[in-house]
Amino acid sequence: MDLVYLNGDYVPRLSAKISVFDRGLLFSDAVYEVVSVIDGRLVDMERHVTRLERSLGELSINAFADWMAISQNLVAENKLREGLIYLQVSRGVMDEREYRWPAPDTAPTIFAFAQQRVLLENPMADSGMRIITRPDLRWQRCDIKTTQLLYASLMKMEAMAAGVDDVWMTRDDMITEGTSQNAHIIREDGVLISHQLDCRILPGVTRIEMLMQAKSMELTVEERAFSIDEAKNAAEAFVTSSTLLIMPVVEIDGHKIGDGRPGERTRAIRQNYMAAVQKASSKLN
Amino acid sequence: MDLVYLNGDYVPRLSAKISVFDRGLLFSDAVYEVVSVIDGRLVDMERHVTRLERSLGELSINAFADWMAISQNLVAENKLREGLIYLQVSRGVMDEREYRWPAPDTAPTIFAFAQQRVLLENPMADSGMRIITRPDLRWQRCDIKTTQLLYASLMKMEAMAAGVDDVWMTRDDMITEGTSQNAHIIREDGVLISHQLDCRILPGVTRIEMLMQAKSMELTVEERAFSIDEAKNAAEAFVTSSTLLIMPVVEIDGHKIGDGRPGERTRAIRQNYMAAVQKASSKLN
Repeated sequence: MDLVYLNGDYVPRLSAKISVFDRGLLFSDAVYEVVSVIDGRLVDMERHVTRLERSLGELSINAFADWMAISQNLVAENKLREGLIYLQVSRGVMDEREYRWPAPDTAPTIFAFAQQRVLLENPMADSGMRIITRPDLRWQRCDIKTTQLLYASLMKMEAMAAGVDDVWMTRDDMITEGTSQNAHIIREDGVLISHQLDCRILPGVTRIEMLMQAKSMELTVEERAFSIDEAKNAAEAFVTSSTLLIMPVVEIDGHKIGDGRPGERTRAIRQNYMAAVQKASSKLN
Repeated sequence: MDLVYLNGDYVPRLSAKISVFDRGLLFSDAVYEVVSVIDGRLVDMERHVTRLERSLGELSINAFADWMAISQNLVAENKLREGLIYLQVSRGVMDEREYRWPAPDTAPTIFAFAQQRVLLENPMADSGMRIITRPDLRWQRCDIKTTQLLYASLMKMEAMAAGVDDVWMTRDDMITEGTSQNAHIIREDGVLISHQLDCRILPGVTRIEMLMQAKSMELTVEERAFSIDEAKNAAEAFVTSSTLLIMPVVEIDGHKIGDGRPGERTRAIRQNYMAAVQKASSKLN
């Protein structure tokens, strides 16, 4: 994974450097996307581009690029079969460090890279994830996919220190999402509950496809926040993300979910999701 | 201001570049300091170093450098008489993008630069600042001086769009601080009110010196949060920061503070503060 896209060029990893005066570095004035690559194909790229353009729009960052072509080139040049494409856009380089933005015609800084990762045969899909809950202290525009990921990163380390896999964050005792995944539960009666789209969560691309799969199965979908207690008493729990796809959760705050093994409906959603991705991929081939 | 410090070297501005895999850029996993330079001398450098080390400690970033020597070299090499030294430390460069931290022995990325700026003869000290209030949507560890400054930057732009100078942010209807300044008011009866040190505000270095000046004058200091109404009804209002030093506020949400001109006690604090800085500076010469 040696080739990196940087402002129009494809350069070796070690040459991919940007100015210390970049606003992404000084003000976290940057947004990003992570796109799954399966069988050498970008998954749901159009939805990622739509979300990236929304993030850019919310921050009034003027950046236009052929995101699809950049991503496809990185997949091809790095011979990536399975893994991730990471795309980042910042407002660009300043002459002077100032809170106020530089002139609107300032060139944004755009870079992207490929990362190999096992997605389909992730052993965690069989064992399930163990989760703890912690207060969500992030900023209150989590719907914009910015690089302000420090708190999520701190929570990831807290999970590791606790010997579990991840943290589900809570505001007003309601679960918002994981450190980099949307969180969902399924009740015994077949109701799937997923936090509504608002400023508290990232509008997940995998979440959209998951909800479509759930609706095509026998599940009733409720888009609303759910509490820690509701999660603990759920029959199944799982997360969605571009990295983990659909991933079962088997324990929350030391409490087993269902019988402590990945839920049957969660497994079915994962299988249907992967089948849909592979079908879409084969159509493109 | 052409020379930049970067990981042990002093390099020309255009050569000061870091890897796109730096955690400061990908996760905002970085802290910083801004130190005033007056008469070619660093102001309150020891307190800045103490705060920087606290920020690093809160995030478990292992970084040791002679912050004083780096800053002094930048002042000397760039022949800076009045302005700012900016210091930033991130957790360093990752091999793979991961939320979890790289090994503790990963080299941090350290850079610093000088910026010329008028501090003493700032005309705003005569005109005063005009402020609007907005909800404080930042993360809830604002006591750590991280580079997660996107919301503050958005608020700075909102102030400019509204034709004023800055925003005071509020949580639960209480004012926390400005986009990059601590906020304070003085009541007619001589009580100076300044938000207590907690996770909601940055522990300002200039704030410490200001409180000492205020106590040495006839003022009673109350360290507690104050409301927008309390601020509007105050006799005087002002901010403190390394960039603005002590700066009067004359209008909040379109409402004049006092007679709409910089307050007498605020002016006295500014004068005493500047005299103390220049006295400390002349001692060092």
